[in-house]
Amino acid sequence: MFRTHTCGELKIENINTLVTLAGWVQTVRKFGAITFVDLRDRYGITQLLFGENLNTQLNAQPLGREFVIRVKGKVSERSNKNKNIPTGDIEILVDEFTILNKSAVPPFTIQDDTDGGDDLRMKYRYLDLRRNAVKRNLELRYAVNRSARNYLHENGFYDIETPFLIKSTPEGARDFVVPSRMNQGEFYALPQSPQTFKQLLMVSGYDRYYQIVKCFRDEDLRADRQPEFTQIDCEMSFVEQDDIINMFEGLVRRIFKDVKSIEYNETVERITWEDAMWNYGNDKPDIRFGMKINNLKFPLYTFPAKTGYLKNSPLENETGFKVFDDAETVLAICVSNAADYSRKQTDELIEWVKRPQIGMAGLAFVKMNKDGTVKSSFDKFFNEDQLKNLAGFCNAEKGDLILILAGREERTRKAMSELRLEMAKRLGLRKDDEFKLLWVLDFPLFEYDEESNRWVARHHPFTSPKPSDINVMINNDPVIKNAEKYLEHPYANIKANAYDIVLNGNEIGGGSIRIYQKELQEKMFAALGMSKEEAQHKFGFLLGAFEYGAPPHGGIAFGFDRLCAILGGSESIRDFIAFPKNNSGRDVMLDAPSTIDEKQLDELSIKLNLK
Amino acid sequence: MFRTHTCGELKIENINTLVTLAGWVQTVRKFGAITFVDLRDRYGITQLLFGENLNTQLNAQPLGREFVIRVKGKVSERSNKNKNIPTGDIEILVDEFTILNKSAVPPFTIQDDTDGGDDLRMKYRYLDLRRNAVKRNLELRYAVNRSARNYLHENGFYDIETPFLIKSTPEGARDFVVPSRMNQGEFYALPQSPQTFKQLLMVSGYDRYYQIVKCFRDEDLRADRQPEFTQIDCEMSFVEQDDIINMFEGLVRRIFKDVKSIEYNETVERITWEDAMWNYGNDKPDIRFGMKINNLKFPLYTFPAKTGYLKNSPLENETGFKVFDDAETVLAICVSNAADYSRKQTDELIEWVKRPQIGMAGLAFVKMNKDGTVKSSFDKFFNEDQLKNLAGFCNAEKGDLILILAGREERTRKAMSELRLEMAKRLGLRKDDEFKLLWVLDFPLFEYDEESNRWVARHHPFTSPKPSDINVMINNDPVIKNAEKYLEHPYANIKANAYDIVLNGNEIGGGSIRIYQKELQEKMFAALGMSKEEAQHKFGFLLGAFEYGAPPHGGIAFGFDRLCAILGGSESIRDFIAFPKNNSGRDVMLDAPSTIDEKQLDELSIKLNLK
Repeated sequence: MFRTHTCGELKIENINTLVTLAGWVQTVRKFGAITFVDLRDRYGITQLLFGENLNTQLNAQPLGREFVIRVKGKVSERSNKNKNIPTGDIEILVDEFTILNKSAVPPFTIQDDTDGGDDLRMKYRYLDLRRNAVKRNLELRYAVNRSARNYLHENGFYDIETPFLIKSTPEGARDFVVPSRMNQGEFYALPQSPQTFKQLLMVSGYDRYYQIVKCFRDEDLRADRQPEFTQIDCEMSFVEQDDIINMFEGLVRRIFKDVKSIEYNETVERITWEDAMWNYGNDKPDIRFGMKINNLKFPLYTFPAKTGYLKNSPLENETGFKVFDDAETVLAICVSNAADYSRKQTDELIEWVKRPQIGMAGLAFVKMNKDGTVKSSFDKFFNEDQLKNLAGFCNAEKGDLILILAGREERTRKAMSELRLEMAKRLGLRKDDEFKLLWVLDFPLFEYDEESNRWVARHHPFTSPKPSDINVMINNDPVIKNAEKYLEHPYANIKANAYDIVLNGNEIGGGSIRIYQKELQEKMFAALGMSKEEAQHKFGFLLGAFEYGAPPHGGIAFGFDRLCAILGGSESIRDFIAFPKNNSGRDVMLDAPSTIDEKQLDELSIKLNLK
Repeated sequence: MFRTHTCGELKIENINTLVTLAGWVQTVRKFGAITFVDLRDRYGITQLLFGENLNTQLNAQPLGREFVIRVKGKVSERSNKNKNIPTGDIEILVDEFTILNKSAVPPFTIQDDTDGGDDLRMKYRYLDLRRNAVKRNLELRYAVNRSARNYLHENGFYDIETPFLIKSTPEGARDFVVPSRMNQGEFYALPQSPQTFKQLLMVSGYDRYYQIVKCFRDEDLRADRQPEFTQIDCEMSFVEQDDIINMFEGLVRRIFKDVKSIEYNETVERITWEDAMWNYGNDKPDIRFGMKINNLKFPLYTFPAKTGYLKNSPLENETGFKVFDDAETVLAICVSNAADYSRKQTDELIEWVKRPQIGMAGLAFVKMNKDGTVKSSFDKFFNEDQLKNLAGFCNAEKGDLILILAGREERTRKAMSELRLEMAKRLGLRKDDEFKLLWVLDFPLFEYDEESNRWVARHHPFTSPKPSDINVMINNDPVIKNAEKYLEHPYANIKANAYDIVLNGNEIGGGSIRIYQKELQEKMFAALGMSKEEAQHKFGFLLGAFEYGAPPHGGIAFGFDRLCAILGGSESIRDFIAFPKNNSGRDVMLDAPSTIDEKQLDELSIKLNLK
């Protein structure tokens, strides 16, 4: 037997018990004739005391860091108690010990603050995984997994496995493909998500489905994307948008409770996509803080499509300041209590918005000094009344700093969104341990693709339009006759029955009510530029299924890796994945991908075609 | 809102409640002016009564089988109650109804005894999945999943996800590979199992790991194999064989209890691999019945390797009956109460063993008649005393039929194993609802591969030899100098620290205590004919991990699909998989695998190389 107890469980009640423990040597400390060892396992750390009688053996078989040992001995009360650990009241008086396995000196220290760089840690991931920081992340991940499963089980969802070797239907992202040996010249694809399968399960009457499942996308990896990632994938029948929202708000609340001991009882705000874009400049706003965007000028084109936002904007008329007058869009945020920013600080902000990632030509600002005076970077063009009018529009108060960006609509809105987040970060308004949920609703169903002058699905081709827009879709030809005026096409304003759930400025889940009518699904495929034959070839099984009594249904998928990362207070999903890949899609520990044998290629009826 | 209740929940207590139900039309029955409809969903069936007032609408919008409808109405007591279903006391007096979706006439009937053949059912799997028989299977599968997760959670196991895009290390089975776009000319492989990852997790100190996970093997598909299949994959640290056996016997007992309401309290028998082969002719014996094999002659070569089985076999000396005298092996089973088999029946059995799948030249038999006389198919050569001696050796009693096969050891033992199972089947001794577990232990570590004149791992290259055999392995050269006498090589008798768990004659799980010492692992790779460089290239990460304090560990993997099938009383795993593939590895519903675009091939830097 290797152990009678773990290294995390012995307490004062166990005194005088004879025990056997096994684990890793965390530290070795010699004090004269006696030696203290901290023995570590998953469950904790227990102090071992090797007396003088073991010195001969210790000299012959010295213990080193990360050695695996087994000890037998008696539990004894410590004179010098350690209140920081559960086993801190006791130590083991070792009678005998065995070295089960030695360890070379690790390439980095197995500690919270390791000296290992990213590359080294990834190469020796099995050692990195020993670090408490990483271990806590994986434990949190399992806790989220368990909590989600319990909630979904209690709500009548079945975990039903869907296949991994499926058919390539490259729509949005690129598929990973798998050559078939038995079917020469043919390929499977790895699923980008189980989307169509879960819909088929609804057609089959399973009513409530879920899976915590790997998905695959062969995309160029931006920071913090992985070629394989995990979703909590769910689908329900006979539901409307509110049913889904209520069910999965419940899921997130439950996870908060089980994993973070947070009772998230407040109402989760719901805003439309248009409002999100108008007020925050992006579709996943962080609402842990306000600092909404003020639209100083109604944008000329594009966004937001229609009415509802018009109000008495201060820059609608010529001001004489060309930067504002010529701009498509002028946006402002009001940063509380930042009027005392120094010249150096404002200069630094100007440089910040000029970085290529942000790409603005400059930044204007208005300082609402505490003494009531107002000072701007464009005083030449604006008198005090104009400035105060502008400040009033932004609801600025004494002591506030107004930051203004002007330029092309899309870029400017995006830049202002970034600036808003940056200012919040600098002001400490984005706290890792504060959690704020938000639903974003009513996304556009389509996006316009300039290159091919046609519509693309913003979510995916299975998302239903809002009920009121179904006829707009059915009764109009999707072809865009006049590319310049695509915004006037009836399809431009069709809203999707889709919803995203956002946590602290990150989309953690998204879904939609699905199309379940064959005619509408065919129209959708046509709108996306697919011929009837192509639609049949790629999605014949789904169109077929819709002929035999498909129920109304909808669902959602949560990005499991990201959800865990945010709950763990981290921006990086990689630290929440046991064996992640780097930005080139490589597993540096395994050294994968790698070349394969000629024989394997030959059996698969493929050969290399290197450039 | 689509429904206030499901079709499975309304009872006599709900009478007079106004309800909304949604579901599928199972049947439509017209009785004069009124129409009865059975409405079906996942939860049950509820009877609907459409009165005369709805006839106009029903005529305009007639209901058909598998239509999806929503109805509103009042719960009412049925005059003609149906005690067979939970909702049988009530019916819904329909006030209004809406057709949510129509259905074409399904290509086969959605019933337990469907008229659909296998191919049709697979093509329209989404309809097949509606059948109660299939639905019950998937429900059972989910119940097993849930039960296993609960047990493992309660026992401190973490579900930790391991990667799907890994490195190709073709050892046993063939890998499915995935071309990497970002790493030209290189490939990922899909995991045949998470074996090395779970071992790394033990090295990382996670102590108890599990996953219910898809695995992939590109093998020619025998009946009832799938290219992707699911394992319950588990690993533990600081354990010996008995720890694993106890833990996972507990898992199976728990599943029996949760899923089948069976308290499996009896001791699970443990036999060695040698005993299994000697007494049952295979390594996964069905012990729901006895009928052990009697070894009438000690086999000349090969099996079983050594001592322990010698007893006074009746055919060790010449008998004059050439069939027995010339045979390497002569095996007998004693079939209770079958002495009255007619000539026709014994002739039929003779034909049965001659079939190519069995491949024997003939079958001898001895009838122990009820009147005390003995009659055999080789009376010419054996007198009554000899026959009675033989019968006594087989523990045959009056009324029994002894069946005897003679020939080459391996084939004969295999054939006798099949004949034993066949006779048990004919006698009704293999009951679907009787469950009998068995552990098979002490497998050989190596098998001899004639073609390459070297050892192959019987289980996998990470399985440890028995502690007492470690030195045999370390201290001997694995090279086989004399191919003919490979059995005399010390490696031939090394036993593995491996165990299989068998249920009703099916291996449902298998595992081993792993090698955790770098030196031993290197020796194992060498024994399997791998050069140092090759071992380093393929498994460098594991050998590396073993340098930094790898703990003793071991684990097991259950074939989840098969376990479910057996618990469901079926021989076929396909009925327990939502979307299975056929014997050519095709998903006929999706029509996958399929050709992919030139552009995709080009991006992946591969081209076809068809023969």
